[in-house]
Amino acid sequence: MDKMTFKTPLAIAIAAASLGVSGAAMADTTMEERLAELEARIIAAEQRAVAAEQRAAEAEQQRAATADIESDAEIEERLARVERYADGEEGFSFNVYARSGLLIGEDGKSAEGGPYVTPAGPEGGAVGRLGNEPDTYAEAILNYRMRFDNGAKALYRTMIADGTTSSNDWTGGESDINVRQVYAEFSDLPSFTGAFENASIWAGKRFDRDNFDIHWLDSDVVFLAGTGGGIYDMQLADNWKSNLSIYGRSFADFDVVSSEDPGLEGNTDNLILTSNNYFGNWQWMVNGMSAADNDTRDIGAGQEAAENGFHTMVAYHGDSFFGMGEGSYKAAVLHGQGLGAETKNIGANGDLTDDANSTRLALYGTTYLAPKWRIAPSVLAETSEDRFAEGDSYDWATLNVRLANELTENFEMQYEASYQMIDIDPQGYSDRNEVDGDYTKFTIAPTFKPEVGGFWQRPEIRLFATWSDWDDELNDYSATDSFGSDEFTGSQWAFGIQSEVWF
Amino acid sequence: MDKMTFKTPLAIAIAAASLGVSGAAMADTTMEERLAELEARIIAAEQRAVAAEQRAAEAEQQRAATADIESDAEIEERLARVERYADGEEGFSFNVYARSGLLIGEDGKSAEGGPYVTPAGPEGGAVGRLGNEPDTYAEAILNYRMRFDNGAKALYRTMIADGTTSSNDWTGGESDINVRQVYAEFSDLPSFTGAFENASIWAGKRFDRDNFDIHWLDSDVVFLAGTGGGIYDMQLADNWKSNLSIYGRSFADFDVVSSEDPGLEGNTDNLILTSNNYFGNWQWMVNGMSAADNDTRDIGAGQEAAENGFHTMVAYHGDSFFGMGEGSYKAAVLHGQGLGAETKNIGANGDLTDDANSTRLALYGTTYLAPKWRIAPSVLAETSEDRFAEGDSYDWATLNVRLANELTENFEMQYEASYQMIDIDPQGYSDRNEVDGDYTKFTIAPTFKPEVGGFWQRPEIRLFATWSDWDDELNDYSATDSFGSDEFTGSQWAFGIQSEVWF
Amino acid sequence: MDKMTFKTPLAIAIAAASLGVSGAAMADTTMEERLAELEARIIAAEQRAVAAEQRAAEAEQQRAATADIESDAEIEERLARVERYADGEEGFSFNVYARSGLLIGEDGKSAEGGPYVTPAGPEGGAVGRLGNEPDTYAEAILNYRMRFDNGAKALYRTMIADGTTSSNDWTGGESDINVRQVYAEFSDLPSFTGAFENASIWAGKRFDRDNFDIHWLDSDVVFLAGTGGGIYDMQLADNWKSNLSIYGRSFADFDVVSSEDPGLEGNTDNLILTSNNYFGNWQWMVNGMSAADNDTRDIGAGQEAAENGFHTMVAYHGDSFFGMGEGSYKAAVLHGQGLGAETKNIGANGDLTDDANSTRLALYGTTYLAPKWRIAPSVLAETSEDRFAEGDSYDWATLNVRLANELTENFEMQYEASYQMIDIDPQGYSDRNEVDGDYTKFTIAPTFKPEVGGFWQRPEIRLFATWSDWDDELNDYSATDSFGSDEFTGSQWAFGIQSEVWF
Repeated sequence: MDKMTFKTPLAIAIAAASLGVSGAAMADTTMEERLAELEARIIAAEQRAVAAEQRAAEAEQQRAATADIESDAEIEERLARVERYADGEEGFSFNVYARSGLLIGEDGKSAEGGPYVTPAGPEGGAVGRLGNEPDTYAEAILNYRMRFDNGAKALYRTMIADGTTSSNDWTGGESDINVRQVYAEFSDLPSFTGAFENASIWAGKRFDRDNFDIHWLDSDVVFLAGTGGGIYDMQLADNWKSNLSIYGRSFADFDVVSSEDPGLEGNTDNLILTSNNYFGNWQWMVNGMSAADNDTRDIGAGQEAAENGFHTMVAYHGDSFFGMGEGSYKAAVLHGQGLGAETKNIGANGDLTDDANSTRLALYGTTYLAPKWRIAPSVLAETSEDRFAEGDSYDWATLNVRLANELTENFEMQYEASYQMIDIDPQGYSDRNEVDGDYTKFTIAPTFKPEVGGFWQRPEIRLFATWSDWDDELNDYSATDSFGSDEFTGSQWAFGIQSEVWF
Repeated sequence: MDKMTFKTPLAIAIAAASLGVSGAAMADTTMEERLAELEARIIAAEQRAVAAEQRAAEAEQQRAATADIESDAEIEERLARVERYADGEEGFSFNVYARSGLLIGEDGKSAEGGPYVTPAGPEGGAVGRLGNEPDTYAEAILNYRMRFDNGAKALYRTMIADGTTSSNDWTGGESDINVRQVYAEFSDLPSFTGAFENASIWAGKRFDRDNFDIHWLDSDVVFLAGTGGGIYDMQLADNWKSNLSIYGRSFADFDVVSSEDPGLEGNTDNLILTSNNYFGNWQWMVNGMSAADNDTRDIGAGQEAAENGFHTMVAYHGDSFFGMGEGSYKAAVLHGQGLGAETKNIGANGDLTDDANSTRLALYGTTYLAPKWRIAPSVLAETSEDRFAEGDSYDWATLNVRLANELTENFEMQYEASYQMIDIDPQGYSDRNEVDGDYTKFTIAPTFKPEVGGFWQRPEIRLFATWSDWDDELNDYSATDSFGSDEFTGSQWAFGIQSEVWF
Repeated sequence: MDKMTFKTPLAIAIAAASLGVSGAAMADTTMEERLAELEARIIAAEQRAVAAEQRAAEAEQQRAATADIESDAEIEERLARVERYADGEEGFSFNVYARSGLLIGEDGKSAEGGPYVTPAGPEGGAVGRLGNEPDTYAEAILNYRMRFDNGAKALYRTMIADGTTSSNDWTGGESDINVRQVYAEFSDLPSFTGAFENASIWAGKRFDRDNFDIHWLDSDVVFLAGTGGGIYDMQLADNWKSNLSIYGRSFADFDVVSSEDPGLEGNTDNLILTSNNYFGNWQWMVNGMSAADNDTRDIGAGQEAAENGFHTMVAYHGDSFFGMGEGSYKAAVLHGQGLGAETKNIGANGDLTDDANSTRLALYGTTYLAPKWRIAPSVLAETSEDRFAEGDSYDWATLNVRLANELTENFEMQYEASYQMIDIDPQGYSDRNEVDGDYTKFTIAPTFKPEVGGFWQRPEIRLFATWSDWDDELNDYSATDSFGSDEFTGSQWAFGIQSEVWF
C-alpha cells in the first residue's frame, strides 16, 4: 500500500514535468501553435492522470484489505510492552549466580578447599576464592514483576538454591536443594507521599536488599537474611534515606541446659530489628536483636548463651579507587555484642555468649593499574572476645589481591595472592585447640570470557593452579575441620577448571 | 521514506494552487495575455514538478534501501506472535502461589498456628487463616504452551513446591521441596468432533482442574490430586458438560495385620474413577475408588480398613451474593463412604474403615456491604461416623467471616472472626481422647496492596494481631498436636507480618 | 497520517483527469472557445488543488503529532530482538523432558517395571519402555543465552530433575529432586581463529553435548556426565571435527579393604579424559580414566577394583534407513576395559575390576513402511567378562521393535515387541546367582498426539496394555531386584496411562 501511495505522486510529477518547454522558445511560435501545444500537453497529462487514477484506486483497495492493521503509534505501544517482558521489567525474569567445577589435588582426588577452609573460616575469616572452590553452587532466581493501572509496581521473587561437592550429575537423596527466598515487594504506591513517596515495602523470606560483599573472598560485608518485613527508602531529610525492617531467624533443636531433662531440645526465634541509613556515600546500619530463652542453650560448662544482641556498621561507598584514580572502593567497620557479635551473618549464630563482642574491618577497591591490568586489593579482619566461652579470643586478618591482565577480547590471566593471620584461643569451646599461625595461597588462572573487561563481567571459564601453605600448628585446631585431615596438612597444590556465572 | 511520500503530493498541490486566479479577472484580459499567463503558469508548474520529481526519486532510493523491511501486516503478525509469548499464551509462562512471614507469640517465639491447628484439623476442620499462618509456602508453576499447524494446542505444566516453618534462608537438608505436578493436556484437536469437539485430554500428575476452595479457611471444597489421565468438557447434551478421569494415589509403607510377620509393610494404590458434570450453575461430582489389599492395613485392634469407597458432591456456583446482591457464592454438600469418607482430599486417607461415612457442608460468599466495605462469610461443617474405629464420631463446624475496609488505593483494614465447634469421640484411635469444645479466633490486619479492590486481588502485605482461645478440654485431645503443648493452652496472642501472592 | 498521504495524490489525480476531452473534438472549436475551456479547466484544477493543499496540511499536522514514532526499520530491529527472546535465542528459555503416568498390574496395584527391570538391567540391558514405565520423571531445563557486542555468545544452563514412583502429589521428605546440570558454554569468540574459529568452550556440571540414545529402550548409547570442562568443534582438518573434555565423577563413601579399620570409607574421583572425533557420518570416541586409590575399594574377597580404565566407541550416524530408504539409523560398537568396562555410563561404576572388559553393540533405525505405518527396530547387546569378580560373565542382547499406525491427525496405534536373552554368571558378586533365560514383552498403546507424524513428535498421551513373561530361572538372580518379588514372577499383565513430553 505504501508503495502505491508513492507511485501515485510520482506519476503526476512525471506528467507535470513532461509539459515543460523553455520560456525562450515560446516567443517564436504563433498563438495557434502555442494553444495547440498547450492542448497537446494537457492531453498527455490527462492520459497520465487516468493511469494515476487507476493506480490510486488499486491503492485504495489494498488499503481496505489491510484496514485492521494498527497504526504505527499503536504498534509502537504494543512493541514497547513486549520489550518490557523480554527485558524482565514486566512479567517473568530469570537471574542466576552459579559456579561449578573441579578442584583436584596432587593425588588426583577432590581437594579440600573453599574460602572458609582455615580455622578462622567458621568465624567468617575468608581467604581468596580463586582456584579454591570445591563445589557446584547454583541459585535460580525466578522473578515476576507486575504493573498496576494506578502506577503501583510489585515484585515477587523466589530463589531455589543448591550446593554440593559431588561431581556426579544425579545427587538425588543427598541433595541440599532448598528455597532461600520467597517475598513480595511493592513500590510506586500512589498512597505513599511525603517521606514515603519513593519508599517500597516488603514481606517474606529474603536476602536483605542492601547486603554487599567482597567478591574475591566470597564474603559479604553484611549478610542479613531471614523472614520478616520492612520498608526501604524513606526520605527522612534531604540527604538522609532510611530503611527499617524486622527479620526473624530460627534457632532450632539446640540442646538445653537442664537438670531435669538432659535430652531436652530448645527452639526459639532471633528477632532482628534493622535500620540502614544513607547520607551521601555514607551508610550507617544499626541492628538490635532478641531471642527469647536462648539463655537456656547449652554451649558448654559455665557459659551462658546470649538472649540479646546489638550490631552496628559504618560504611563508605567510594566512587573512586580510594581517591587515587578511577575505580571504586568500599570500607566498613562493624561492631557487635552478644548475639550481634557475629558481625557478618547478622543474627545467625545462637552460640554467642552474652559478653561476646567483635569488631571487624572490611575494605576493598578496584582500579586499572594500566590499560590492560586490573587490580583489586581487599582486607578483612576481626578481633573478637568472650565469643563462645569466657576469656576466649578470635583474631584474624586476611589480605587478598586479585590481579588480571587482559590479553585478548576473550582471554585474560588472573592472579590471586591471599594471606591470613590467625590467632585463636578458644578456651576449649567445641574441642578446639589454641592456635597461632599464617595461611598463604597463590593462584594463577588463565580465564576465558565472552567479552573481557572489568572485574564484574561474567560468565567466566577458568583453568587454575593453586599453591597453598600454612603453619603446622593450624592443623591441630579441630579434629572436624579440613586442616590436618588426610593428605591436607600444608604445602598443597590444587588444579582445576571452573565456570562462574551471574546475570 | 514516509516523509518523502508525503512531501511529494504536497509539492504538487502547492504547484497546482499557485496556478489559481479568480474567474472574474479573466474577462478583462486579451487572449494573448491570457495565453501568456497560462504559459507562465505552466512554466512555474513545470519547475515545481521537476523538484517534485527529484523528491520522488529520492524517496524511491530510500525505499530501495529499506526493501527488506516487512510490510505493516507482516509486522503486525510477528508482533501478535511475540505478544502471545509475553502473555504466556504460547511458550513459557510462570504462575505462583506463595505466602511467607512471621507468626510470633507473646513470648517472642514462633507460635503454633495454621488453619488446621485444632483437633478437627486432621479431619479437615479448618479455621480462619488470616494472622494464623506460621510457614513459608511457595509453589512455582512452570508452564509451556504449544500451538500446532493443525490448530491443536498442548499445555505442559510442572509445579515445584516447598513448605517450611523455618525462618532461615538456607534450609538445605531439612527442606521439603518436591514436584507436585507434571502433566500434559491437549485441546482443540481437529480429530475430536461432536460431543468431543471442545474436549481436552490429559495425563500425568496433577491437581484436578475443577478443584475449588474456600480461600479464607485455606481449605479446598474438593481437592483431588494424583497421577492418572482423563478427559474434560465432553458436551453430552445442550446443557450438560461432563469430565471423566482416573487418578491413582499411593498408600505406602503401612503396617499390615499379620500373625506371621509382625513388621510387614504394605503398599497399594487407591485408584479413583471421577466424573464431574455441569448443568448450568450446578455441578454434580461422583467418585468411586478401590485400593486392593488395603483391608490388610493395621488401623487398630478389631478394625478393618476399607478397600473401596464412594464419594459424591452436589455444588452450586452462584453469580450473586446468595441472590441478595452483587457478588458470588458457592454451596456444596459432600458425602462419602469407606475410602470416600475423606470428603475433601478425595482418596488420600487409607486409614478409613469400611463403614466410615461423612457428610460435609461448604458454603461461602463475597459481596460489598458498602462502597468500601467487603464481606466474605463462610461455613464448613462435617459429621462423620465409624471413621477410624467402630462407633467413633467426628463432628465439627466452622463459621468464619472476613471483613475488609478499603481506606486508600493501597491500604485496607482486614478483620477476621472464626468460630469452631468440635465434638469428637475417637474411640481410642491413635491415642486420641474424646473432646467437646469450642475454638474462637479474632484477627485484625492492616493490609497493603498495590491496588485495593476485591477479595481476589493479590499480592498483599499484612501486619496482624490475632487473639485465639479454646476450651481447656481440647488441650487433651492428642499428645502430638499443638493444643496443650508448651505455652499453647488457650487465650493466645500472636503478632506478625506476612506476604501473600498469586498470579 | 498514512491515510492523508494517500488521499492527497488521489485528489490531484482526479483533478487532472477532469481536464480531459478527446483530441477529435478540439478541431471544431474556435481558439477563443479553446482558451476559455483551458482556463475553465485550470480553475477547476485550482479548486481541487486548494482542497488537496488543506488535506496535505492536515496530514502534516498529524505527522507532527506522531513525530516520536520510530521508523519502520527501527521497529523491525526492535521486533527482531524481542522475537529472539520469545524464541529463546536470547535471554531465558525453558526445555523439558517429562513422563508421568500409572502402571497398574492385574491385582490393581502399582506394577514393577521399567526398561531396566530384568537381571541385565543393572548392567545396562534395557528392554522396551512402552507401557513399561512406573514413574513420574521430570527435567526442568532453565537456559539463559547472552549475546555480546563483539559477537560472542554465552549459554548458561541448569537442570532441576526429579523422579519418583509415588502417585501422590506431595512427596516432600521422600523427594529425589536435585540439580543435574549447571554449566556455561561460550561460542563465537572473536579471539578464536583457525581450527578454533567455530569451537565452543564449556565448564561446569553437565550431560555431554554429544550423548545420543536409543529412545525406545530409554538407553543412551553413551551417557557421559559429570563436572569438568572442555572444548567442542575444533576443526583439525577439512573433514575432521574434534572435541576434548575432562569430566570428574565422585566415587563416594565406598567400603575400603583394610585390616586396621574395618569400617573405613573411601572417597575418590574418577577423572575422565574424553575426545570425540567426527569424520563425515563417522564418530570415533576415546575415553581414558583414572580414579586414585579406587583399588582400595572392597568389592568382595580376592577381587581388586580398577584404578584406571579405557573406553572407545565407533559410531555411524546414517541419514537413511540402513541405506534401504528414507529415514535414519545409528550404529555403534563400544568397548571398555577396567573402569571403562561400563560402556554406556562412562566412568560411573567404581566396582569394576582391573580385568573387566565389555563390548557392546547398539543399533537402531526409523522409517515409514507405508504412508501411515512407521517402524523403528533396535538392537542393544553386550558381552562382558571379569566385570565385578574374576571369571564372571554378563551376556545379554535385546531386540526391540516399535511400530506405529497413524490413524487420524491426533491418534495412532503404537505397538512394541521386546525380546531379551540373558546369560549371567556373576561368580557370587553381590549375592547374585547364575541365570540363563529370556524375557519377552508385548505392548499395545492407543496414543493421542496434537499432531501425528514421526517418531520424535511429542507430547503424547498413551493408554496401554502390556504383557510380559520370562523364564522362571530369572526370578532367582537376586533377592533385591523385581523379578521373583511378590506377585511378579512372570506372565504379567499391566495397564496404564501416561504422558510423555519433550521440547
